[in-house]
Amino acid sequence: MPISEFSLIQKYFANTGKSAYAASLSQGDDAAVVAVPDDKQVVMSMDTLIAGVHFPAETSAADIAYKALAVNLSDLAAMAAKPAWFLLSLTMPEVDEAWLEAFSQSLKQAADIYKIDLIGGDTCHGPLSISIQVTGLVDTDCYVTRSGARPGDLIVVSGQLGNAALGLTQPDLPKALNAKCCKALNRPTPRLCLTDFLQQYATAAIDLSDGLVGDLKHILDKSEVGAVINKGSLPVNDWIRQNNAFEYALNGGDDYELCLTISPANSSKVDTWNQANPDCPLRVIGEITESGYYLVSKSQNIDLSDAQGYQHFGK
Amino acid sequence: MPISEFSLIQKYFANTGKSAYAASLSQGDDAAVVAVPDDKQVVMSMDTLIAGVHFPAETSAADIAYKALAVNLSDLAAMAAKPAWFLLSLTMPEVDEAWLEAFSQSLKQAADIYKIDLIGGDTCHGPLSISIQVTGLVDTDCYVTRSGARPGDLIVVSGQLGNAALGLTQPDLPKALNAKCCKALNRPTPRLCLTDFLQQYATAAIDLSDGLVGDLKHILDKSEVGAVINKGSLPVNDWIRQNNAFEYALNGGDDYELCLTISPANSSKVDTWNQANPDCPLRVIGEITESGYYLVSKSQNIDLSDAQGYQHFGK
Repeated sequence: MPISEFSLIQKYFANTGKSAYAASLSQGDDAAVVAVPDDKQVVMSMDTLIAGVHFPAETSAADIAYKALAVNLSDLAAMAAKPAWFLLSLTMPEVDEAWLEAFSQSLKQAADIYKIDLIGGDTCHGPLSISIQVTGLVDTDCYVTRSGARPGDLIVVSGQLGNAALGLTQPDLPKALNAKCCKALNRPTPRLCLTDFLQQYATAAIDLSDGLVGDLKHILDKSEVGAVINKGSLPVNDWIRQNNAFEYALNGGDDYELCLTISPANSSKVDTWNQANPDCPLRVIGEITESGYYLVSKSQNIDLSDAQGYQHFGK
Repeated sequence: MPISEFSLIQKYFANTGKSAYAASLSQGDDAAVVAVPDDKQVVMSMDTLIAGVHFPAETSAADIAYKALAVNLSDLAAMAAKPAWFLLSLTMPEVDEAWLEAFSQSLKQAADIYKIDLIGGDTCHGPLSISIQVTGLVDTDCYVTRSGARPGDLIVVSGQLGNAALGLTQPDLPKALNAKCCKALNRPTPRLCLTDFLQQYATAAIDLSDGLVGDLKHILDKSEVGAVINKGSLPVNDWIRQNNAFEYALNGGDDYELCLTISPANSSKVDTWNQANPDCPLRVIGEITESGYYLVSKSQNIDLSDAQGYQHFGK
């Protein structure tokens, strides 16, 4: 007899995560119940990943699980919230126990690393897709939004940009670079290590899911400001620099690095951060202005004001 | 130019809902932020509806939206929680603005009625499916679970059972009955009106999504008890009674009525409720026992202990 939905959840998804905040009631009822400490606000986001749209159909179950959780955690990171609980709605064409074993083990691995507990959800029969809803906690009024950037603020990004898009579209890279880019694509690192930095110094923040140019535009729109990006300052790998393939860094999606703005008075904090955190380097790539949106380099200035990031329903 | 994801959300999904609890930060950022009153716990559930699985492909956009929210609200009702906020992940094969207009208007109607605000989510390109995550609030430790039923407790259900399954499978019903059954199928009423009753009197509760026999079994398993259901007491329409088609009431899914257990000392509360609430009648249909699971009638007793509700991946 095939496994029932109830047994399937029990077998594969019980005890996933190591949250600092145990649920009052977890999986196995009509809903989960959690208690929120008095000094915290609740931060909530939900993203769906669909086979053939958000990941190639041949992606491994382990990579799908890891990425599905990571991209949601990245939203919490951009708000400067700490992970607490998540819900999973898993739609599968069939019950493939080997696939489920790999998926659930990888999900558990990511949930343990980022200290977030799976407290509920459902499984359905249908085309492969994964919806995850994450809940984080943040000290009251310490969350960071897209709307606080001010003219003169420095624009800062974490990590390297363009690696995920390069991994998706360029299969013939040198071996070490290919491995790095595939990891960026399939196992992005939600930048939760930056939570305290953001709370202390960020005037605005967003995670880079659809590409730098489009995502930064959301900060500009919400903050009612402009920006100048210095092309030469973009943190990219040597291949992108040598091939002048900055398009990957500017418009390639799926990086899940953070883009934040900080007051120029805090510019030294970036250096201090970088000395202590070589695994998550920050780079100043430009400046917030009163208006306009430009990419500047030695040879030319490009007007970005009509540029858009990845469009889920085409341009 | 086709509408962008950002504009689409702005155009169709802004200002959906009339929650008593305004979000601190709603749609339009990486995540939403909400504040939880000190005396409340947070109740969370997520369900996905997939075209061709949870509703026929020809179902109207308005019915799909209404049902997607209602079935999630039904989970909150079963926990005795009050709705506060929800997230929507909407996957569509294309941007059909007429469809979106009907979908979003109906979603707004349901969100207004049940006082729940849409605070975030995403839209994706892919096979039609709707994931909704609902968050409710409940006075601390006043939620109701599946695990509190005790031998001697009365088993109570709301409304009529079997109408949704009848509407799905019997197109040739008399006109008025067909309308009633289609409404049960496409626009189920989450029994949030029972929240206070549940908090005061229910020892356990579940919502009937997969059929009475299977869903009550979850209460029995979690509470480590048995049950006897009296076939003659099942609240069904005349067609089911006259055709002896109790299978619809016993194993038909999608009713979204509540099944609860109460102490026999509170049996008079059911009569009091019914006098004041003719739109949501409660009916005692059986009793919790030490062990075993039976359907009893004048003619025979049927052992239900191996019965299962609707199985998402087949029996």
